[in-house]
Amino acid sequence: MNAEAAQLLFSLIEFLGMLAFGLSGLIAAANKRLDVVGAASVSFIAAFGGGTLRDLLLDRRPFFWMEYQGYVWMLLGVTVLAMFVMRGRRIDLTQRAIQIPDALGLGLFAALGTAYALQMGQSGLVASLLGVVTGVFGGVLRDVLCNEIPAVFSDHRPYALCAFAGAWTFVAADGLSTPHWLALLAALSVTAGIRLLALRLDWRVPGWRDAGSSA
Amino acid sequence: MNAEAAQLLFSLIEFLGMLAFGLSGLIAAANKRLDVVGAASVSFIAAFGGGTLRDLLLDRRPFFWMEYQGYVWMLLGVTVLAMFVMRGRRIDLTQRAIQIPDALGLGLFAALGTAYALQMGQSGLVASLLGVVTGVFGGVLRDVLCNEIPAVFSDHRPYALCAFAGAWTFVAADGLSTPHWLALLAALSVTAGIRLLALRLDWRVPGWRDAGSSA
Amino acid sequence: MNAEAAQLLFSLIEFLGMLAFGLSGLIAAANKRLDVVGAASVSFIAAFGGGTLRDLLLDRRPFFWMEYQGYVWMLLGVTVLAMFVMRGRRIDLTQRAIQIPDALGLGLFAALGTAYALQMGQSGLVASLLGVVTGVFGGVLRDVLCNEIPAVFSDHRPYALCAFAGAWTFVAADGLSTPHWLALLAALSVTAGIRLLALRLDWRVPGWRDAGSSA
Repeated sequence: MNAEAAQLLFSLIEFLGMLAFGLSGLIAAANKRLDVVGAASVSFIAAFGGGTLRDLLLDRRPFFWMEYQGYVWMLLGVTVLAMFVMRGRRIDLTQRAIQIPDALGLGLFAALGTAYALQMGQSGLVASLLGVVTGVFGGVLRDVLCNEIPAVFSDHRPYALCAFAGAWTFVAADGLSTPHWLALLAALSVTAGIRLLALRLDWRVPGWRDAGSSA
Repeated sequence: MNAEAAQLLFSLIEFLGMLAFGLSGLIAAANKRLDVVGAASVSFIAAFGGGTLRDLLLDRRPFFWMEYQGYVWMLLGVTVLAMFVMRGRRIDLTQRAIQIPDALGLGLFAALGTAYALQMGQSGLVASLLGVVTGVFGGVLRDVLCNEIPAVFSDHRPYALCAFAGAWTFVAADGLSTPHWLALLAALSVTAGIRLLALRLDWRVPGWRDAGSSA
Repeated sequence: MNAEAAQLLFSLIEFLGMLAFGLSGLIAAANKRLDVVGAASVSFIAAFGGGTLRDLLLDRRPFFWMEYQGYVWMLLGVTVLAMFVMRGRRIDLTQRAIQIPDALGLGLFAALGTAYALQMGQSGLVASLLGVVTGVFGGVLRDVLCNEIPAVFSDHRPYALCAFAGAWTFVAADGLSTPHWLALLAALSVTAGIRLLALRLDWRVPGWRDAGSSA
């Protein structure tokens, strides 16, 4: 693989990841019986919320979705389409079908968020936090708007931690002067790999020990 | 009508719209039994949240409420006053009384939001989205703070869609080099007209079809 | 006391206040049984959310937590530590133990927020609102993420009002050309003093009168 092939791969993953994030918004909207306006809004915010928050925090303009409006049209189209085809059992199917593009998208967006922050002179710690924000805050806003505690905070499955591992991979690779595309690819692989492994092996993030159990 | 008369009309609608948005926050606060601090905060955020979010996204400063502080004082006064007079049956009365100023405010704020975004060089699509955000996100933040799913996403009544229609009216009128005041007036009339018609005729925004009904 | 001693005192209060805000996030996370990622995130947002929102509104960069990263590391450490020691009865103990540092932190952050806004040319009204936002919005975001109505809006205990009193104390002192450190100290004392007095004497913020009671 070289830089150009990697760029093509990243564009594909970006597209698939955005779609997976948007579909996760649609599923949340369907579960809460939102109307089509709510479904489109939650889908939009799930897909673009993380990157927008990162750009607000870094004071970076224009936002991703203002620059590449094809994604906005795509999401509007997907919302309308989903109104007709995504019902009942198909929601479960969709939920399983998006696991892999979602993991890849998480990996790419976390790596890109970290890269942008480092470029703007942030430290590794802040850059990795902004990478994680890029990857997970779309989902956080989606869940807040649906009046749920964000799943990423409460479902005891590694998600933000995978993004964190990928973000630090990028910071380390960048520190070793790895070519940009290779550092992105490494970070993306670490995040997506751990995420998919964690889903397969049913890893759990620890919570608070019960008062009565081991005390 | 001419530009000056229109400006006077817009100032009046701005005042009434802001008041209607603020009162919607007070009603939400009363329904949730918030204290006076919560009522004032939710009222403030319902009135200014949409415009503030738009300005954050467009990187526009100073915010509306920082520039025209009379509105802040007005809302504080209304909150205190409402504590004494707005109870029980009067909440229903208020809810019905604000429908028309709310529709006019939605129309004006969506049109102004679209206009600002176009002025700053955004495309029609992005400008219309920011117009809708200006009109509806005060209410979204109000509902999130009151721990409810935003009504605009879930009540199956056209609200954001009316703002969207008005926003596109402005984009079209602006593209045809219509005088600014006339384009605003057209957009405002489209939004408010559709909104009031929809309330009168009980139009519904489609949601997800039930799994069992037509499948 | 002189300016240097005051600066030392402020650094100490800043540290204690940040810790108290972060711990309030951990307590909320424990009550909702969040996992360790959720606990760290909510703690982080409770501690830094108010200042970050103020800086977003004032367009001030870099954020506090980007500049002084020791606080970020400290909070991550406290979260991990708390996972092991903060259970059951200890949560109640922690809740009571943080009342004083929380009141001091509220006082300092509200005063500093007001000071920054005045420095940037805002009026007394806007500056005092931003001071209150600095002090209370970390807690608001914490509660929204935990799917609760913000306590500061609904628990009928003076909190934002104390910050407001302190903020206006700073505005007044600043108008009288009081030395900066003395104005901060006065504002901080007013906020923390009223807050602790209100807790001791069980003062209540009025809400909506019940429809049936006095009507």
